[in-house]
Amino acid sequence: MRRITLLGTGLIGMFYTMALHGRRGRDRVGVAYSRSADRAKEFAAEWGIPRFSANMEEAIGDPNTDTVIVALPNHLHEAAVIAAAEAGKSVLCTKPLGRNAAEAQRMLAAVERAGVFHGYLEDLCYTPKTLHALESVRGGAVGKVLWVRSRETHSGPHSDWFWNKELSGGGAIIDLGCHCVEIARSFIGKEIRPIEVMCWGDTQVHPIDAEDSAVGLVKYENGAVGQFEVSWAFRGGMDLRDEVAGTDGTIWLNHWLRTGIEMFTAVGQSGYVAEKAESATGWLFPVGDEPGALGYVDMFADMFDAIEDRRAPRETFYDGYVVNAIVDAAYASMASRQWAPVELPIWRGATAATNVAAIRDYDAEHILIKEERMMDGSLKLIVRNKRTGEIGERRA
Amino acid sequence: MRRITLLGTGLIGMFYTMALHGRRGRDRVGVAYSRSADRAKEFAAEWGIPRFSANMEEAIGDPNTDTVIVALPNHLHEAAVIAAAEAGKSVLCTKPLGRNAAEAQRMLAAVERAGVFHGYLEDLCYTPKTLHALESVRGGAVGKVLWVRSRETHSGPHSDWFWNKELSGGGAIIDLGCHCVEIARSFIGKEIRPIEVMCWGDTQVHPIDAEDSAVGLVKYENGAVGQFEVSWAFRGGMDLRDEVAGTDGTIWLNHWLRTGIEMFTAVGQSGYVAEKAESATGWLFPVGDEPGALGYVDMFADMFDAIEDRRAPRETFYDGYVVNAIVDAAYASMASRQWAPVELPIWRGATAATNVAAIRDYDAEHILIKEERMMDGSLKLIVRNKRTGEIGERRA
Amino acid sequence: MRRITLLGTGLIGMFYTMALHGRRGRDRVGVAYSRSADRAKEFAAEWGIPRFSANMEEAIGDPNTDTVIVALPNHLHEAAVIAAAEAGKSVLCTKPLGRNAAEAQRMLAAVERAGVFHGYLEDLCYTPKTLHALESVRGGAVGKVLWVRSRETHSGPHSDWFWNKELSGGGAIIDLGCHCVEIARSFIGKEIRPIEVMCWGDTQVHPIDAEDSAVGLVKYENGAVGQFEVSWAFRGGMDLRDEVAGTDGTIWLNHWLRTGIEMFTAVGQSGYVAEKAESATGWLFPVGDEPGALGYVDMFADMFDAIEDRRAPRETFYDGYVVNAIVDAAYASMASRQWAPVELPIWRGATAATNVAAIRDYDAEHILIKEERMMDGSLKLIVRNKRTGEIGERRA
Amino acid sequence: MRRITLLGTGLIGMFYTMALHGRRGRDRVGVAYSRSADRAKEFAAEWGIPRFSANMEEAIGDPNTDTVIVALPNHLHEAAVIAAAEAGKSVLCTKPLGRNAAEAQRMLAAVERAGVFHGYLEDLCYTPKTLHALESVRGGAVGKVLWVRSRETHSGPHSDWFWNKELSGGGAIIDLGCHCVEIARSFIGKEIRPIEVMCWGDTQVHPIDAEDSAVGLVKYENGAVGQFEVSWAFRGGMDLRDEVAGTDGTIWLNHWLRTGIEMFTAVGQSGYVAEKAESATGWLFPVGDEPGALGYVDMFADMFDAIEDRRAPRETFYDGYVVNAIVDAAYASMASRQWAPVELPIWRGATAATNVAAIRDYDAEHILIKEERMMDGSLKLIVRNKRTGEIGERRA
Repeated sequence: MRRITLLGTGLIGMFYTMALHGRRGRDRVGVAYSRSADRAKEFAAEWGIPRFSANMEEAIGDPNTDTVIVALPNHLHEAAVIAAAEAGKSVLCTKPLGRNAAEAQRMLAAVERAGVFHGYLEDLCYTPKTLHALESVRGGAVGKVLWVRSRETHSGPHSDWFWNKELSGGGAIIDLGCHCVEIARSFIGKEIRPIEVMCWGDTQVHPIDAEDSAVGLVKYENGAVGQFEVSWAFRGGMDLRDEVAGTDGTIWLNHWLRTGIEMFTAVGQSGYVAEKAESATGWLFPVGDEPGALGYVDMFADMFDAIEDRRAPRETFYDGYVVNAIVDAAYASMASRQWAPVELPIWRGATAATNVAAIRDYDAEHILIKEERMMDGSLKLIVRNKRTGEIGERRA
Repeated sequence: MRRITLLGTGLIGMFYTMALHGRRGRDRVGVAYSRSADRAKEFAAEWGIPRFSANMEEAIGDPNTDTVIVALPNHLHEAAVIAAAEAGKSVLCTKPLGRNAAEAQRMLAAVERAGVFHGYLEDLCYTPKTLHALESVRGGAVGKVLWVRSRETHSGPHSDWFWNKELSGGGAIIDLGCHCVEIARSFIGKEIRPIEVMCWGDTQVHPIDAEDSAVGLVKYENGAVGQFEVSWAFRGGMDLRDEVAGTDGTIWLNHWLRTGIEMFTAVGQSGYVAEKAESATGWLFPVGDEPGALGYVDMFADMFDAIEDRRAPRETFYDGYVVNAIVDAAYASMASRQWAPVELPIWRGATAATNVAAIRDYDAEHILIKEERMMDGSLKLIVRNKRTGEIGERRA
Repeated sequence: MRRITLLGTGLIGMFYTMALHGRRGRDRVGVAYSRSADRAKEFAAEWGIPRFSANMEEAIGDPNTDTVIVALPNHLHEAAVIAAAEAGKSVLCTKPLGRNAAEAQRMLAAVERAGVFHGYLEDLCYTPKTLHALESVRGGAVGKVLWVRSRETHSGPHSDWFWNKELSGGGAIIDLGCHCVEIARSFIGKEIRPIEVMCWGDTQVHPIDAEDSAVGLVKYENGAVGQFEVSWAFRGGMDLRDEVAGTDGTIWLNHWLRTGIEMFTAVGQSGYVAEKAESATGWLFPVGDEPGALGYVDMFADMFDAIEDRRAPRETFYDGYVVNAIVDAAYASMASRQWAPVELPIWRGATAATNVAAIRDYDAEHILIKEERMMDGSLKLIVRNKRTGEIGERRA
Repeated sequence: MRRITLLGTGLIGMFYTMALHGRRGRDRVGVAYSRSADRAKEFAAEWGIPRFSANMEEAIGDPNTDTVIVALPNHLHEAAVIAAAEAGKSVLCTKPLGRNAAEAQRMLAAVERAGVFHGYLEDLCYTPKTLHALESVRGGAVGKVLWVRSRETHSGPHSDWFWNKELSGGGAIIDLGCHCVEIARSFIGKEIRPIEVMCWGDTQVHPIDAEDSAVGLVKYENGAVGQFEVSWAFRGGMDLRDEVAGTDGTIWLNHWLRTGIEMFTAVGQSGYVAEKAESATGWLFPVGDEPGALGYVDMFADMFDAIEDRRAPRETFYDGYVVNAIVDAAYASMASRQWAPVELPIWRGATAATNVAAIRDYDAEHILIKEERMMDGSLKLIVRNKRTGEIGERRA
């Protein structure tokens, strides 16, 4: 069992604790740290945590904990991670790892130097649906992955620091795009090198300095493309969807707004509907098990099992660093208005990739382009002459 | 933490163990019992269970376990429950509790006589969606519940004994209807007395003696109706849906075939798609976390928390007994071809119920029947004169 | 082209005219009749109808029309149909044909005696989805039809006469159940004789004398069952869904609340959302083409093509009469609290039916009960010994 | 009524005729032209068309027709349009108007010089769902439109010429992107000038010279973005979806794969499922009324009504020309790897646009950034100091 120092008692700290303490889990938060002693005390009382502190070093150094979870605002990650690594504890850090790749690279260096376990808390790569879909993709169900769309949009974050780009590292891209980038990368294959990014971002609605909406395309060495769509200006709730298109199949995942609960209420229900829900009457779409659907439960199970099995978890600081490098390239593309290369001074994946394209022969002289069942029941084929390049039709 | 004697190593025993041992749980199966020693050994090895046995008494009496889970075929429940109660252990029994209300009543008497904890493993009342919806209903989101439809259909059970009505107690009604009955009862309110049942059942497809399809209506004292639809002849997978209609709202739950994963595969994936899935290519609808979606995880959490908190769980043997009484009435209605009374010699709920109907005044002399927004934007009202009963229209 | 006398200028008359005059149709309403001359005038002006009248005989006798559409309240159908038949015109009558089978039988006799074309305006059997599904069923896609559920529920009708059971012939069953009954009958096969009905109905919510909610089961001679669910107390819009279960497949149709348009609006839209929609903000589910989705367009196309081709349309007065007989049996079952026979003094379908059950051999000595793919990838079969009846398992 | 010369008898000509002759329409194809006389004859016989020809001039000049529909491969549009314009007939041309903006501009000039009616047959802007959604957007339901995603993907076209970029003008972008571009433009507002395009395109799968997959972003003068996603390598059927995000709402449209019909069949159905469907067993998603769902019926109704009312239709050659200019910019961006300007020598829309952003005051000194209902029921607000720019939180 794990005994945890939790740094940060905001929404994410609450979701983490809910997942850790929920349903007969054997792991426990031993000490809660907040910059505010009052808040730390209140949080500890609410979640049955034995100790609390407003002193980060003290919390990290607590002799009864073995694992540190960093659930702080982005600008505080680096210092917390370095302190935890130096204390020799297992370190788990929330997303994004850094505000940029340089920060992430220093964090990676710190944990590797200290030789401690490190896990990147990218929960959306751990939702039960994503895990199931990843297994299907590994099993070949969609053939070679050509394109992944990952979308995370809502009406904007709940804490002030997100909206300050000095503290957070950017806007909707660093906040939400980091999820989408890693989801796409997981489906395409982490061993495939991301090459370049083309990104549009704009401050469409909110009176802030950072982008509140963005769409980016990440091109991988094998020709696959990961598309991220993020916004802090979406209306209707929290839109968390992924689409995977492969040479032999397609997967659509909907994690939040359409998961199999549909409720109409003329009178409303007292209080809360679901995270980022916008209405309290009419048709509502709650989520049965929020921490589970967001991946928190499976994420911590993998992390803690990995610590005990002395193996790497599914998501490490190295992954967090790659994500930051892709996000940096997205910001560079926004500025340069052209494709921007992904700078990866440390690359541990494959050094060459096979392209996704596949050629299928029709006969000795022709390549098959496609076949389609027509309304009259016949099968029509489009073929190309290998020598002349001429394209023609065949009926079967 | 709980240390468990598991009686039964079939599909349901496997699902239970998967839920218990999954994801950092602190409870463990300590001994597995099967009627076949080989099977017991194999199962124990597969799931990391320290001991196994083909002797039920020995398994129940294991000094290192405190809780007995009965996951045996229906005809073996009674003897197992009695033995566990006499051994003074907490007893959890899979659904249906008995093959009929008489058996269930004896089991209830046994655990109450022995003073042991008893839980009825009605997993589908514990799915995250059901729990969420029940909370919304308790919060008033749909007003008074008028009607609940609960549907469980698939292509038939996976073990031979289900198909033998001496061993199972019936056909699709006892196997699947027991879920539907308790789901409807949970939404309508367990304190409301079920009064009578009208049921159609038939052996439409399979060459068996029991019904393979049935639809029944359970009428409650307050005028609400619970509708169950069951079949062992459904094609397309496992259809697990609930609908709740109330005076102020509606809830639709889909637990299995449409939960937010949609996958098309032209080539198939190796092996398993989802329980009772029927195809391996084309559009498939897998479930992310099967044990979670079926309610096993939340069910055991409630059961074990209840044991430790010395409170009753959400589902007790008393509930199992009420369900059996309703199922008995369904079979009686099938035979008599008319409404059959629900016989409940033991009734612990309310002794009087307020009817679901609600009257709303339009003005001093008229009752409002309904109002509707028309295509031209106007509001049309239908009213009834309180004195004359005359029905007329008003425009607002 | 058809020239039409339209009797009735309420919601249904408006929907019919919208369908007839919409999108380049070649048929036209020539005269509109309403009991109120003002209303007739207003309606004619709104829809570009050249003539109007408050005199029914005059409207029917209009020398420039050849077809009479009866879109009047239920208690006025019989007189209007008889007058139109005696005028020698083609007669189309809205649903239900009569308030009961006796009325319907007299109307059928009148049109057959006069030798005029007669069409039963059962629009929901003509929705594009229903037509497509019927064709699939005819093509064998679901095997033999075992069970059909047809559901039509909303918050209650928009005109006062519906709520008066003397005028309408009943409550939600006669109003909405007539649709459901004919939809189920269409899928099961119109040649199969409906035998008996079991029905629950109650006045759950509204202060009226008729039932506002009901569920009924119609048993057919071949063992198939048609289930109707109707309510005037449903919240959330108009719920129009059908489900067809067959030995080899399943069909689910959703005609209204989930057709592929989903809209969230925080501010609302001016005016109308969709028929019976209940909210103007939040998540809304409009329908693209309402008259098309409700079947009006395809219904009139079939009717008028049938007149010109001198063939019977898909839905005739005979069908309306069978529906009324089934509805009568539903009311009889409500009263007697048992299965009630369907009285059909005139029966023109098959006089014997083959049962839906199908037996499949496993080997010379065994019948196959079912097969299922298990989690470990193996195939498990349940078989029954033909001689002994014993049930056992096989692995493949 | 219209009398039509139909040029082209391929799949699109068939869909057009189906829409024109279906369901009691008053317009008729008077002569069918195909480059092959045999094909022309066969098509005329199949669809009840009185005359046919393999001579285009003769077909256009037919004295009994007043309207010419160009349903030919892309490289034949210009000559056909010019001939029809010179013959003084109303001209309707299928999408895309030209292979590029230069061609389109010449066609526009030809019809305007001749003073004939011209309509651009962009059917997907006319689907009942799109028309309904456009009306909602005009009514303010989603506030200001910020972003539109329009996706059209399938496994590739059915005729050989599409795959030859000399004949078609490109690959998936010119074929499918032309739809998506005009759908987005319709939602954003045709009066708003498209400024620049950023586009990724690649030949991911098929052995051809043109792109088989592409994603592009079209930026409008008011800051709104239209996103198109096209592919000839999608598996699972034809994916036609649109998403509209506005400051006050969201719209999701699904035109094909999920429209409310879901069918499971273990045995298959004879023949055709739906356009571009890929499987014949398992879960299938047919469309009730294909020509209607694709917009053909409403498109021709608008076109012919416009001719008779002497007004412009919803989609004119000018629109086709703007679409071609945007597509040209997409190809330019693919080549230059940066944002490419949309070249519009003829611009007839607004010359200045108001930005989509909106500022909302919290109090005299602060701007409101956002508000969110938290799990504990409280309302949290993020505000920004107008003077200092500082961002902070408030509880309400």
